[in-house]
Amino acid sequence: MISSGPTSKSMRDRKLGHRRVNEAGVVTYKKKPTSELMAAIQLGMGQSIGGLSSITERDVLMQDFVVVQSVFFPKEGSNMTPAHLYSDFRFKTYAPVAFRYFRDVFKIREDDFMMSLCDEPLQELSNPGASGSIFYITQDDEFIIKTVQHKEADFLTKLLPGYFMNLSQNPRTLLPKYYGLFCYQCGGKNIRFTVMNNLLPSGIKMHEKYDLKGSTYKRKASKSERAKSNPTLKDLDFNENHPEGVLMEKEYYDALIKTLNRDIRVLESFKIMDFSLLVGIHNLDLAAREKANVSLQRGKSFKTRLAQFSTALESITAKADIDDENEDENFPPGGIPARNSRGDRLLIYLGIIDILQFYRLKKRIEHQLKSLVIDGDTISVHRPAYYAQRFAAYCANRVFKKMPVQLGIVFAYLSQQFINTCIYHRNLLILVFITAIY
Amino acid sequence: MISSGPTSKSMRDRKLGHRRVNEAGVVTYKKKPTSELMAAIQLGMGQSIGGLSSITERDVLMQDFVVVQSVFFPKEGSNMTPAHLYSDFRFKTYAPVAFRYFRDVFKIREDDFMMSLCDEPLQELSNPGASGSIFYITQDDEFIIKTVQHKEADFLTKLLPGYFMNLSQNPRTLLPKYYGLFCYQCGGKNIRFTVMNNLLPSGIKMHEKYDLKGSTYKRKASKSERAKSNPTLKDLDFNENHPEGVLMEKEYYDALIKTLNRDIRVLESFKIMDFSLLVGIHNLDLAAREKANVSLQRGKSFKTRLAQFSTALESITAKADIDDENEDENFPPGGIPARNSRGDRLLIYLGIIDILQFYRLKKRIEHQLKSLVIDGDTISVHRPAYYAQRFAAYCANRVFKKMPVQLGIVFAYLSQQFINTCIYHRNLLILVFITAIY
Repeated sequence: MISSGPTSKSMRDRKLGHRRVNEAGVVTYKKKPTSELMAAIQLGMGQSIGGLSSITERDVLMQDFVVVQSVFFPKEGSNMTPAHLYSDFRFKTYAPVAFRYFRDVFKIREDDFMMSLCDEPLQELSNPGASGSIFYITQDDEFIIKTVQHKEADFLTKLLPGYFMNLSQNPRTLLPKYYGLFCYQCGGKNIRFTVMNNLLPSGIKMHEKYDLKGSTYKRKASKSERAKSNPTLKDLDFNENHPEGVLMEKEYYDALIKTLNRDIRVLESFKIMDFSLLVGIHNLDLAAREKANVSLQRGKSFKTRLAQFSTALESITAKADIDDENEDENFPPGGIPARNSRGDRLLIYLGIIDILQFYRLKKRIEHQLKSLVIDGDTISVHRPAYYAQRFAAYCANRVFKKMPVQLGIVFAYLSQQFINTCIYHRNLLILVFITAIY
Repeated sequence: MISSGPTSKSMRDRKLGHRRVNEAGVVTYKKKPTSELMAAIQLGMGQSIGGLSSITERDVLMQDFVVVQSVFFPKEGSNMTPAHLYSDFRFKTYAPVAFRYFRDVFKIREDDFMMSLCDEPLQELSNPGASGSIFYITQDDEFIIKTVQHKEADFLTKLLPGYFMNLSQNPRTLLPKYYGLFCYQCGGKNIRFTVMNNLLPSGIKMHEKYDLKGSTYKRKASKSERAKSNPTLKDLDFNENHPEGVLMEKEYYDALIKTLNRDIRVLESFKIMDFSLLVGIHNLDLAAREKANVSLQRGKSFKTRLAQFSTALESITAKADIDDENEDENFPPGGIPARNSRGDRLLIYLGIIDILQFYRLKKRIEHQLKSLVIDGDTISVHRPAYYAQRFAAYCANRVFKKMPVQLGIVFAYLSQQFINTCIYHRNLLILVFITAIY
């Protein structure tokens, strides 16, 4: 039998950020097995959210944003906490009353929230982001739990008053929806994590998935990423795959761009950069052709969601405002209707992600500035505006396009199979009619 | 002819704070004649509010709270400002977009606001508060302009995010409604002022007026105040005049106390103390008896008000929620229906005032602490909570009382003159029936 030594690259621990996978396939975060982490934070969140019900509903005050609640969970249990099988730990809840308000804005009932997070095992996503964060998803597909760095957590708490202002003025937003911020403390380690909305319902097959920033520099997915079964592609890949962009009817396009611009203004006001637009594309026509593969895992995706204003479609528009043309029960809900240039019917799932990396990035820029000896102030003032403007322009002019009215009519005929195939390219429309000869 | 020299006390300048009245009766503020001040700030506000219309409506962002807009008004005019008859001055507008949002919450249209403030001369209130501030009132009785000290203006700008949070969660509040904060700068002097709602409509005769704090220490109006035709009385005077408090039906009482408690919690959260409840009492039965005196100056008080949620009644409850029993056109609007212990029908006009004196007071306390050598931290943490609790208890248990159901019935009979007179005293009800003998 041949055993490969520890020098063999494929068998060594694979590490990305604080996330590490050892030889046996055990995933750890800050050297803590993620299975233990999951169980402990479920205990912690259960106690925290359950305990909140004793605080009567009241208005959120400014100082609620800086409250940190801390509870000790000894292995043997206490009069506040149950006994458990893991190491003693401390569990912190940031701004509990403020986050309860945010959940209330999204009409998430507290007992539903607790059940989703704590009653069933979480599923760990095996394909983490570039940051080395751990992602868990709840069984009901509703919530994402993501570990965040210390500085990201600090930044989120600083962001809360502005976040409150944004939500109170428009709950329809494509910004990440933060439902909670917690910290698990054990053996001198702090593991902070947020609970967020899940942008891409796992029951709906995403035929394409993009992380877009509006930049071209190093914005092509790596070979290893593209080799994956469900890769996250980047700007250059999108430009190549969709030379004409994704086409939307005027009302959807206008609602989407209006929401995006408002959200980008908030990000710019906090000098946030380097955020992305995560776009998942479900191709209805492709799905119909793939039907044998059962691309829609029923029973999981078609339940009523707990959170409101949470799907892509709800985030950009009051559903009642636009005729609901997709009343078919088998039609996946929540996506924004669109077409690609071949006229395929698409559903777009999207949201802005990675808005907390400000400080990490700021440090990096400051470092660059020091070595380049450039006026730091000018750069730090103008960079966020430049990033925001470029991002907004890329979304509005390149990624999404308003469907010309005539094209909409052709596509409608296409759906009814009067026209067999068409290709939209540089404002030229190539129609293919095939008439059966009887 | 006898002329009294400048040593005669009655003829010397009378000064209170920055407000001074000279021998000829000319009122000055920081040595600036208030007539010139009025004209200049009307010019300034007109330019500021008018200019705001070019900024398209958008969401308020966190940094909008710290914006200060500054415009120079040379005597000879400029391409932005008209020529005028006064000294050159500079006019500053604090947080213009944020205050526009507040006006929008209260449904004040921008052109109405500008017309009220700028198109007609303001009327200066001759009976200023104890602070030595100047008060102007607009011709339409809608807005009060009040000078504030530098530290008060600073504090208001610090308060704005919390103020926003409060308004966005409940526009129904008895806190002062701030519609703008400005600064007139001339000859090295800064005169800052706020535009607020007018709590006591001048068209409705206030038979009694109180400034209440929930304290008994030095809370009796001075002899000179009581000698005035329309004095502002204090806690001890109220306790003497209303030994049984003011009686309200359950629904009004509950709505009022709920609103007050919510407002007091906001004030406490900002460690604000020394605020007052301003209460104006219009006695409908007394007014009917005084009818010859024309206590209601028609045409002024009965117009539709510009601001919504602005009257006392609207501040505590959605008007539609409570049956509007006072549909009589001649019935003064906006007051909360109540009774005194004799069963007289009252209308109560009220609001919380003087919430910006925090810093001034803080300085005074710090000074006391230094001389007394007491642990400053303990005091400064507990004092606001104590003040808030005492204030709330005084309002809920002493000033306003829930009318016993039986008493309500008796009072109703009284109104219909089945009973001629009754006196409610220490839970005893003395009824007087006078039956006419035919």
